[in-house]
Amino acid sequence: MTVAVGGTVYLVGAGPGDPELLTVRASKLIAAASCILHDDLVSESILALASDTAEVHNVGKRCGAKAISQEEINAQMIFMAKSGHSVVRLKSGDPMLFGRAGEEMESLSAAGIPFEVVPGISAAFAAAAAFKTSLTDRRSRSKVLFLSGHKAVTAEPTEIPELPSGTTIAMYMPGKDYARIAEELMRGGILPDTPCMLLSQAGRESQQSRTAVIGDLGHVQPLPAPALLLICPIKEQLSAMEREIELAIEALPR
Amino acid sequence: MTVAVGGTVYLVGAGPGDPELLTVRASKLIAAASCILHDDLVSESILALASDTAEVHNVGKRCGAKAISQEEINAQMIFMAKSGHSVVRLKSGDPMLFGRAGEEMESLSAAGIPFEVVPGISAAFAAAAAFKTSLTDRRSRSKVLFLSGHKAVTAEPTEIPELPSGTTIAMYMPGKDYARIAEELMRGGILPDTPCMLLSQAGRESQQSRTAVIGDLGHVQPLPAPALLLICPIKEQLSAMEREIELAIEALPR
Repeated sequence: MTVAVGGTVYLVGAGPGDPELLTVRASKLIAAASCILHDDLVSESILALASDTAEVHNVGKRCGAKAISQEEINAQMIFMAKSGHSVVRLKSGDPMLFGRAGEEMESLSAAGIPFEVVPGISAAFAAAAAFKTSLTDRRSRSKVLFLSGHKAVTAEPTEIPELPSGTTIAMYMPGKDYARIAEELMRGGILPDTPCMLLSQAGRESQQSRTAVIGDLGHVQPLPAPALLLICPIKEQLSAMEREIELAIEALPR
Repeated sequence: MTVAVGGTVYLVGAGPGDPELLTVRASKLIAAASCILHDDLVSESILALASDTAEVHNVGKRCGAKAISQEEINAQMIFMAKSGHSVVRLKSGDPMLFGRAGEEMESLSAAGIPFEVVPGISAAFAAAAAFKTSLTDRRSRSKVLFLSGHKAVTAEPTEIPELPSGTTIAMYMPGKDYARIAEELMRGGILPDTPCMLLSQAGRESQQSRTAVIGDLGHVQPLPAPALLLICPIKEQLSAMEREIELAIEALPR
């Protein structure tokens, strides 16, 4: 059976960076595709799975420095598929969360290109696993709000809804201006003494974390991307998290 | 290198049910473990990956019929690990979302049992991929709230926070009493004409979906578990979704 069909585009989640955390299907597609169009944050060890004969292009557009527009990415996917390539459009994490997959799917549909979406492990789940922190706990936190802090580093402020206690907030792409993020969170009703945790490169060997309360977040040294800010409304949970992290660091699994 | 170490517990996400949507690491661990303790909703095709010599136990506790208590599951994990087994604790979706992983990790820590967490594709991501519906779209929906409807079928009502427009709600375990769910959503401020979509067994051959507005949700015939209720605040998005679903059904990939 052909894994990757010529003329088809596969929107594939690359997960957090460790090839072992790709889905089985994603792993097979990356190895089989004749063309890979990937984002900046996709790790080298995942790109190393590609076939030697595959065309591999970085179509990433990092914060501000937009080397390639979304329209150009769409056009490139369509061109490659029409040329007969089996195209893997490889996105960090899961393609359907903060990934512009909506626009890419629309352009593929409009061009009549068949496509499939393959989910990936999103950063919050990778971070929860790597740092042994459950996102929910029936005794205290029963909801999770996923939002992106990316807008906070541009003109538009992040709109933080007023949340009942017991909601974990997972903020993707917190950027480097933590003081501004903290200010916006507090303006949205998050109390200054709410514990939070910055997680950087979860699931990679380079993973690291910092804990703080929102009021002090502005003083934390920025961590390298991909990063995630987890905001937990309950203090006891965070102390439990810190204990787990110490144990995890001692054990250093794998 | 030994994949699954004796005396260790692996809390593993089984994803939506298709073995191809397991992570590579999860797939290896399931094949290598000498003991598997799994939830009810884990699919037969995933359990078929287990070694012939492995002890495989269903420790599921479905809605109300609590055959096995959480304490008994904890005790069984610890007993098996202390007996020298490499134990995979296999949970549907991702272990860190609505999965009681917090309690299981605490009991393992307290017993001094080493453990690792392996993330899985959570239902909302599987559904988004299977039905080609992005959870966010920078043009309209920038946040996602994950909550569980499970409580709605017990005594305790689901607390729905007031949300700004542009937030997708992904409700896990909506149960079968859709009328009650709809009532609680409307009490929480969701308008009766808000479009929503029920997704059942996403990523399996048996997957199916229904669309409705919240005000009519009570008239929809219940779908089999695992199911997910996606609530989208924007009408145009839903029509786009329906078009995509028609195309997806026509194409029937794989």
